[in-house]
Amino acid sequence: MNAEDMIMISVDDHVVEPPTMFDAHIPERYRDRAPRVRTTKDGSDVWTFNGQTIPNIGLNAVAGRPKEEYGIEPTAFDEIRPGTHDIDERVKDMNAGGILASMNFPSFPGFSGRVFSAAEDKDLALAVLRAYNDWHVDEWAGTHPGRIVPMALPVLWDAELCAEEVRRVAAKGCHSITFTENPATLGYPSFHNEYWDPLWRAVCDENVVVSIHLGSSGQLSVTAPDAPVDVMITLQPMNICQAAADLLWSRVIKKFPGIRFALSEGGTGWIPYFLDRVDRTYDMHHLWTGQDFGGRLPSEVFREHFLTCFISDPVGVELRHRIGIDNIAWECDYPHSDSSWPNAPEELAEVAAGVPDDELNKITFENAMRWYSFDPFVNGRTRENATVGALRAEAAGHDVSIRSYDKGRFEKSVGIEMGRLVDQATA
Amino acid sequence: MNAEDMIMISVDDHVVEPPTMFDAHIPERYRDRAPRVRTTKDGSDVWTFNGQTIPNIGLNAVAGRPKEEYGIEPTAFDEIRPGTHDIDERVKDMNAGGILASMNFPSFPGFSGRVFSAAEDKDLALAVLRAYNDWHVDEWAGTHPGRIVPMALPVLWDAELCAEEVRRVAAKGCHSITFTENPATLGYPSFHNEYWDPLWRAVCDENVVVSIHLGSSGQLSVTAPDAPVDVMITLQPMNICQAAADLLWSRVIKKFPGIRFALSEGGTGWIPYFLDRVDRTYDMHHLWTGQDFGGRLPSEVFREHFLTCFISDPVGVELRHRIGIDNIAWECDYPHSDSSWPNAPEELAEVAAGVPDDELNKITFENAMRWYSFDPFVNGRTRENATVGALRAEAAGHDVSIRSYDKGRFEKSVGIEMGRLVDQATA
Repeated sequence: MNAEDMIMISVDDHVVEPPTMFDAHIPERYRDRAPRVRTTKDGSDVWTFNGQTIPNIGLNAVAGRPKEEYGIEPTAFDEIRPGTHDIDERVKDMNAGGILASMNFPSFPGFSGRVFSAAEDKDLALAVLRAYNDWHVDEWAGTHPGRIVPMALPVLWDAELCAEEVRRVAAKGCHSITFTENPATLGYPSFHNEYWDPLWRAVCDENVVVSIHLGSSGQLSVTAPDAPVDVMITLQPMNICQAAADLLWSRVIKKFPGIRFALSEGGTGWIPYFLDRVDRTYDMHHLWTGQDFGGRLPSEVFREHFLTCFISDPVGVELRHRIGIDNIAWECDYPHSDSSWPNAPEELAEVAAGVPDDELNKITFENAMRWYSFDPFVNGRTRENATVGALRAEAAGHDVSIRSYDKGRFEKSVGIEMGRLVDQATA
Repeated sequence: MNAEDMIMISVDDHVVEPPTMFDAHIPERYRDRAPRVRTTKDGSDVWTFNGQTIPNIGLNAVAGRPKEEYGIEPTAFDEIRPGTHDIDERVKDMNAGGILASMNFPSFPGFSGRVFSAAEDKDLALAVLRAYNDWHVDEWAGTHPGRIVPMALPVLWDAELCAEEVRRVAAKGCHSITFTENPATLGYPSFHNEYWDPLWRAVCDENVVVSIHLGSSGQLSVTAPDAPVDVMITLQPMNICQAAADLLWSRVIKKFPGIRFALSEGGTGWIPYFLDRVDRTYDMHHLWTGQDFGGRLPSEVFREHFLTCFISDPVGVELRHRIGIDNIAWECDYPHSDSSWPNAPEELAEVAAGVPDDELNKITFENAMRWYSFDPFVNGRTRENATVGALRAEAAGHDVSIRSYDKGRFEKSVGIEMGRLVDQATA
């Protein structure tokens, strides 16, 4: 299929939250204590909440910048593309990139809302989290219907409240919750603990996918403090196989047959090996470990419960039938540094040359629609005017040129050490 | 190729060290303080050294036992196959399994000799380590020339002494040293530190492969203390990608162009994804991270420096040309629980159906011979009498029946928790 003829839903992009996000959503009595943006002496914009300061990390919003200027420095809003934090500009960027719809993971709260859960005042934390979700669902996703796949943050510190929140946002049409790769490493009960059962019950009842983004365990894949940053960048996606194994062998899958997880930004090329590995592990060991999937193989069970996705993954595309053609979705990763926006459709078309149209349609949009119960064909949008080519025509004149947004405040980030990145990422 | 016609060298098996191993090799003045085997009250045999007690873990020597009896309990020598620790019996087991030659990683000292390096008296530690290497090279490998690929333990606590030891054993024909996945997690300088340069210089000079076994970082892939053991078993091979990334992006590869590493028991099916990932990381990030391979891609560089191997890996076999047909070797993993001994040749023949003979020969023995500078064709051994079928004929009458060795001392290990395994593995 030609790039211009594809219809593309990205199941993993990111929103950089705008400073005004809480204005219309936080209850009056918490207004003074809600997260707010302030500008530091060096000109960076940072979020502050509950005594914490969270910088916008440069590498998380590099779309449209020259690669020489990628880096992990703190940034200001006027150093990043408006499309990262302004929904009207975002839709223009999506059109220019040929993207019909997009699911957006959070930035400053952390992928699973850790920044909120750290507050001792849990009433405040819950009010802020609900305000975040209302902003995301009603305002960010609601302004341009059919363009943003809504996603909610979890109540990490209370599984019952988390279940309530899932039901609350599901009533507004939100069928995705972002969660952590590993609650145990964040100090909560593990996936193997019954503690989370109310949440699992709610997501099954409400047809909500638990979307697990790489890096959400609170642990970066850092081999040594003096390792080049390239090591961490390489390893981060492969790390998510830990969550896949943890959940696949857990009681969760067995007790909640309707539960579904997405391995977000996890890539797909490693999945065929992983599926062989779990089947061999089952074959060699289940007689003493006691694993029992009712006579089925773990690889079969995996395909019922896990959605995988890729940015550009030649191996995953080649082995798509070993993964499961109904278990693969595409992602853009805008505005992060792994994204090829605005040329992602051309990149995918090259990788997917030779894939039959019906299979490619599943990967580019049909699987995303089904897994996330999401319909982009509203407000006069039809398959005909939803293609990459049609959307780009709507974006005519929108500036997507690669240009420098850097104020020149920083040294080039060459030779940066991992210790520093870890400090920044967990600050 | 039929299983019976294959010629098989396994680049990853294991020796369970016999109690008498130090007798002929430890200098007289250290004899009283050398490691020794004692039998505990519950009937297990354990090694003791320098105040440490190291059990033989059951799961590490289950070859020939019913799968129901696999487990991680401590064991006694009379509960495991004689072939695990008696070289004459081992060669019979190899013949029965159709295996021409085998490289054997250590058991009780840990994959990188951590048990020795923990001794405060470094003169004692060095004497014990040299005795171990002399036993391994002269006695274990020397008794049946051409059957055991010799391998030495490293001096982990002193890179200069380690280089000396590499040169000492290389003079005896040993071209493999076992090393750790990550010296940093063991408390030593990381792969990125110049500290190790004398070792890298020695292995290049002496044509020695640095063989890195999964699990040698001192860290198991444990997601949570209450995770089923299946999670750890599944993840352990994928964990070695951390060492691959750590080394590939390091200065070691650039400064020592002749250096070679083996990713032992790491599997191969994830490698094609990994190579795509490192090339993409290079493409997207090298302009700011400063990585420079002299105009080449990291995947090309990988193929010059890394040997991979698999037990039975349908994905790796299918994608062998994406990995590099000269970079793949086969392994049996005798007597560990992932091994299919004595039926491994049939298992491989099934997975490799359709692979041309010249490619399969590279995988089953030619690559191992070249990488490890090892010649099995000595003492009248020719290609004709080295095949699986020929070796099995030599083993006629040798008992390979699956049978119980368990004294019945232990409960069945079902439902065991990871915390306990970690304690045992790191005790």
